[in-house]
Amino acid sequence: MSKILTTRAEDYSQWYNDLILKGGLADYSAVKGCMVIKPHGYALWENMRDELDRRFKETGHQNAYFPLFIPKSFMSKEAAHVEGFAKECAVVTHYRLKNDPNGGGVIVDPDAKLEEELIVRPTSETIIWNTYKDWIKSYRDLPLLINQWANVVRWEMRTRLFLRTTEFLWQEGHTAHASRAEAIEETEKMLEVYASFAEEFMALPVVRGVKTANERFAGAEDTYCIEALMQDGKALQAGTSHFLGQNFAKAFDVKFQDKDNNHDYVWATSWGVSTRLVGALVMAHSDDDGFIFPPKLAPLQVVIVPIYSKDEAVRAKIDNIAGDLVATLKKQGVRVKFDNDDNTRAGWKFAEYELKGVPVRITLGARDIENNLVEVARRDTKEKASRSLDGLAGDVITMLDDIQSNMYQKALKFRTDNTHTIDTWDDFVKTLDEKAGFISAHWDGTPETEEKIKELTKATIRCIPLNNPQEAGKCILTGNPSKERVLFARAY
Amino acid sequence: MSKILTTRAEDYSQWYNDLILKGGLADYSAVKGCMVIKPHGYALWENMRDELDRRFKETGHQNAYFPLFIPKSFMSKEAAHVEGFAKECAVVTHYRLKNDPNGGGVIVDPDAKLEEELIVRPTSETIIWNTYKDWIKSYRDLPLLINQWANVVRWEMRTRLFLRTTEFLWQEGHTAHASRAEAIEETEKMLEVYASFAEEFMALPVVRGVKTANERFAGAEDTYCIEALMQDGKALQAGTSHFLGQNFAKAFDVKFQDKDNNHDYVWATSWGVSTRLVGALVMAHSDDDGFIFPPKLAPLQVVIVPIYSKDEAVRAKIDNIAGDLVATLKKQGVRVKFDNDDNTRAGWKFAEYELKGVPVRITLGARDIENNLVEVARRDTKEKASRSLDGLAGDVITMLDDIQSNMYQKALKFRTDNTHTIDTWDDFVKTLDEKAGFISAHWDGTPETEEKIKELTKATIRCIPLNNPQEAGKCILTGNPSKERVLFARAY
Repeated sequence: MSKILTTRAEDYSQWYNDLILKGGLADYSAVKGCMVIKPHGYALWENMRDELDRRFKETGHQNAYFPLFIPKSFMSKEAAHVEGFAKECAVVTHYRLKNDPNGGGVIVDPDAKLEEELIVRPTSETIIWNTYKDWIKSYRDLPLLINQWANVVRWEMRTRLFLRTTEFLWQEGHTAHASRAEAIEETEKMLEVYASFAEEFMALPVVRGVKTANERFAGAEDTYCIEALMQDGKALQAGTSHFLGQNFAKAFDVKFQDKDNNHDYVWATSWGVSTRLVGALVMAHSDDDGFIFPPKLAPLQVVIVPIYSKDEAVRAKIDNIAGDLVATLKKQGVRVKFDNDDNTRAGWKFAEYELKGVPVRITLGARDIENNLVEVARRDTKEKASRSLDGLAGDVITMLDDIQSNMYQKALKFRTDNTHTIDTWDDFVKTLDEKAGFISAHWDGTPETEEKIKELTKATIRCIPLNNPQEAGKCILTGNPSKERVLFARAY
Repeated sequence: MSKILTTRAEDYSQWYNDLILKGGLADYSAVKGCMVIKPHGYALWENMRDELDRRFKETGHQNAYFPLFIPKSFMSKEAAHVEGFAKECAVVTHYRLKNDPNGGGVIVDPDAKLEEELIVRPTSETIIWNTYKDWIKSYRDLPLLINQWANVVRWEMRTRLFLRTTEFLWQEGHTAHASRAEAIEETEKMLEVYASFAEEFMALPVVRGVKTANERFAGAEDTYCIEALMQDGKALQAGTSHFLGQNFAKAFDVKFQDKDNNHDYVWATSWGVSTRLVGALVMAHSDDDGFIFPPKLAPLQVVIVPIYSKDEAVRAKIDNIAGDLVATLKKQGVRVKFDNDDNTRAGWKFAEYELKGVPVRITLGARDIENNLVEVARRDTKEKASRSLDGLAGDVITMLDDIQSNMYQKALKFRTDNTHTIDTWDDFVKTLDEKAGFISAHWDGTPETEEKIKELTKATIRCIPLNNPQEAGKCILTGNPSKERVLFARAY
C-alpha cells in the first residue's frame, strides 16, 4: 500500500493538513476560513467536551447560554478589549434579503438596515457582564460561576484547520467574585483543571505559566496559560485563564453590596479552551501513518478485524468470539467495533484503522483461533503480539491504560529533550533554527526587548512558568539584569 | 407568602412569561429577540439534548459541525427554500470595526466590506448539501446519517421566550439516501424518535401527522410533525421531520453512482427540534405555583429540606440521615440535593423548590425523625404524606416513576377532553372561541379554503394525522366533499 500522507520529515505542515483531511477529522468549507468538522473529528471534540464539562461541574460551575450577537457599542466599553477584538469581527448590518428586481438572485434589502450593527461574538465578556449587571446585587449572589459552550468568530486572515479558524467551537467560563483574592484563586483553579485534563486525557504534558503583558488577553490584568510542545518543536497555547480584575465590572457598572453594606465593583475571571485542542492532540502524538489518539479520548478504542477462511464453521466461530468480546468490552465501558465488512480486505482495514488512530486492533485469524490465540496490535508503539483468548478483555483494558501512560511519557520525554537552557544570543538563535523546542533564557522584563526578540527570531515568550525559580542573570538580547528565566519558543 | 406569579386564569400569556423569568429559566438580553438561557433552563435543555443525542446515535446517526455562515448565493439555489427563509436572515456584510476618527467609539470599517455577503444560518440544508457534493460519489457512501447541534438565527418580529426567539439552539439532522423509499422511511423513523422522546421523557402526548402543502418546510416534498396541546388549548408544533425529495441534491448537483453504474440524484431528509421544547414543557405541565417538570428531565429530582431544632444532637442526626439518603439516591442515579442553607427558612425553601419544579421534596423534621418518619411531598399532585425512613430511597424512586407516568396520563386526559369532533362552521367557530383545543373536522383539501379558515378564525390545520381514518364528509367551510378529517387549532 502506498503512503497516503506526506511524511513529517518531508513537510510537517503538509503532513498535518493531509492527516486532518484524509483521516476524516475536518474538511474545508465554502466559507473562507471556516471548516466542517467531520464525524470523526466531532466525536473527538465530544469526548473532550464531556470530560471538561464534568470537571467544570465538579468544581461548582453551571452552564448557561448567552446571545451570539453583541451590540456594537458594547465593544467600546472596555478600552483594551475593543483594541484587541474590533479588528477581527464579523458585522451584521442587515436583517433581510429580497429578490433582486433585476433578476440576479437575492440581494440585501437596503430597507432592512439595523439601527445599531451587531457583532458576531469573538468572545462574550461584554454581553455577559452586561447581563451580570442585572444578576448581581449582593454578596449573596457571589460567586457566580458560569460556563458557556458556544461557537465564536474571529476574522482571521491566515487560517489552519483546527488551529486557527474563523469560526471555532469553545467553552468560555465567566465568573464573578467578591474579592481579588478569590478571583485569582479561581483563575488558578481553572488553569489547573485545563492542565490536568491535558495531561490525564490528552496525554499532553503542559507548562503552566503566566503571559507577559504583551501577550495578555485584551482586558485582563493577568493571563495564565498552558503551553504544549508539538513534534516539530513549536509551542502551542492550549488554554488560557484570565484574571480580569474589575475591568469589566467597571465597564458595565456591576457593583455588589457586601455584608457591611459597602458597595464595590465585582472581580472577574474568564477562561477558555477550544477545538484548537483537537489540532494540538494530532500534532503532539500522530505519526506518518496516521493519528495516534490517547485511549481516553479516542472515538473508537478497540477494533476487531476478522480474517475468515472459506470454512463457514470457522467463520461462525470467529463471529461468536468477536460477539462475546464486543459484549464483554462494552460492558466495561470500552468503545469497540467488530468490522466484519466483506467489501474490504483485512490489509485495507489495518491501514484504515491505523490512519484513524484506533489504539488497539485485535485480529481474529482462522488459524490463530484454532490455537486459542489472537493477534493484538497497539497503535502507539506498533507492537504486535499473540495473546491467549483467555482473559483477553482484561488484557486489552490493561493495554489501553498502558498506551495512555506511554503516550504521556513519550511526550514528556520529547519535551524534556527539547527544552534548552540557553545563555547567549548566538546560542539562542542557533537553537531556534537548528533544534527548535522550548528555550529557557533570561529576559530583561521589558516589552521592548520582548518585541525586538520576536522581530529578530519570530520567537515569543510563551510564559513565565508558575513557581519559577528565581535566579539572577543577564538578558540574552540586551545583557540587562534579569531575575528569572522565561520560556521562549516559536509558536502556532 | 404572596403569589409571585400571575395565575393562568388571569392571563395565561403573562403567567408563562412570569414563570420563565422568575423561575430562572431565561432572561431577556440586550439584543432584540435574543434571550439568555439561565443555568436552570440550560440544565433542562442539556437533559433533553443528552437523551435525544442518545436516540440519534442508537439509530445510526453521527454528529458533525458545519459553518455558521452561508454564502448569500447558496440561498437562491433552491427556489422554495429562499422564499421561505430569505425574509428573516441576519446578514454579515463587513469583517472589521475601526475607531471612529470623529471620536464616537467604533464604527464599521467601510474598507472591510465582504465581496459576497454571508447569511447567519437560519437552517443548514444549503451549506450541508454543498458539502455533501464532495462526500457522496457512490452508493457505498450512502446512507449518510448526520446530525448537528447548533445555534440558528431567524429574524423574528414578534418573539417569545423559548417559543420564538431570533437565535435559538437546536439540532438538525441531514441525511442522504439512495432511494425515495429509504428517505421516506428515515423521515418517519425520526418523527417517531421525536414522538417517543416527547411522550416518554417530556410526559407530553403528541399527535403524529403530516403538514398540508401550505405549512410545509420551504424546500420539502413532505413535512411530518408532532403536535402537542398546551393548557390554554392552543397547539404547539414540537418537532418536524422533512422528506426533501431530490430538491437539494438537484440544487447542489449531488449525484451518486449505483451498483449498476447508473447515476441519479440523492434523496434527502432533514429533521429538527429546538429549545422551543423547553417552552412546550413549561406550558404543558406547570401550574400557578411554578414549574412541574417530569422527573426524567428535571435538573433536580429530589430536594431534602431539614427543619432543625435547637438541639445540636438532633441537628447532627438529621444531617446524618440526609447524608445517607443523598448517597443512596445518587448511587441509583437520582439527581438530589440536601439544602441545609441556614440563611433561608424552610417555608421559603418549600416555595422556591415548588417554583423551580423539583418533583419530590423530603422534609426532615426534628419531631418526625424521632418517630422514624419523614414528610414526602410530590410536586405534581401536591400530596404530602408521612413515610418511614426504612426503604425511603426505594420509595422515592418509585414515586419519581409514578410522577412521570401520572404527568403523562394527566396531559393525555387533557388532550382527550379538549379534542373536539366538529361538523358545522358555527360549532367550529364557537368551539375555537369557547373551548379551544384540537378540532377534528372535514376540509375540502384546497389551500384556498385552508387560507380562508385561517383568515376568519386564526385556526390552522396542525396536521393530517398519520393512519388517519378515511371517512367521507363535507368541508366545514365550503361544504365541498372531503375524504378525511384533519386537525385544526390555534397555535403557538
